[in-house]
Amino acid sequence: MTKRYHCPVELTVDVVGGKWRAVILAHLKEGMHRYGELRRRMPGISEKMLTQRLRELEADGLVARDDRATVPPHVEYRLTAEGASLAPVLQALYDWGQERAARTGVPVGDPA
Amino acid sequence: MTKRYHCPVELTVDVVGGKWRAVILAHLKEGMHRYGELRRRMPGISEKMLTQRLRELEADGLVARDDRATVPPHVEYRLTAEGASLAPVLQALYDWGQERAARTGVPVGDPA
Repeated sequence: MTKRYHCPVELTVDVVGGKWRAVILAHLKEGMHRYGELRRRMPGISEKMLTQRLRELEADGLVARDDRATVPPHVEYRLTAEGASLAPVLQALYDWGQERAARTGVPVGDPA
Repeated sequence: MTKRYHCPVELTVDVVGGKWRAVILAHLKEGMHRYGELRRRMPGISEKMLTQRLRELEADGLVARDDRATVPPHVEYRLTAEGASLAPVLQALYDWGQERAARTGVPVGDPA
């Protein structure tokens, strides 16, 4: 059964999902990342949760996982074309977050 | 204790929250709505959940509730200036949802 939506916003929020999905996608929008790089940029997420969210995003066709099958392993994550089509959404989320932080004084630190 | 964020996207998703908060805000972006109008536009949400989400959005300063104190009661909801500043975010969510629906054939119906 295909789910029926009553507003396009409902559909987008279903796909972009909760906090971590959007944050992962926003980082990958800036370019390929290795797993460890994502971990470093997202100190608030557990290893288990990051792995789960990445698998979901892969299954949904938004993120691609490139495994170069080398020793030591070298695995990179990047946005697919469908994931890249979310760029205006991710940019809008980013811009508003910055403005809100400036207005309210909530700290938004760069972990890098 | 102030929460610390590591990415502006994280902050925005915390504020815009889950599906219903974004959908309510998107409807109010189009103008004032009475409670019954919101109900009609959002057939998928229970009355209890709509009331809860509206109270949260009011508490967060994104939505204002105008009660004209008349008999019969006439209560309207609208975006505050802070809520209205989310317009680019809500528009991006809407646009991508429409494009995604067109690409995938997922139905997005207008309940009105």
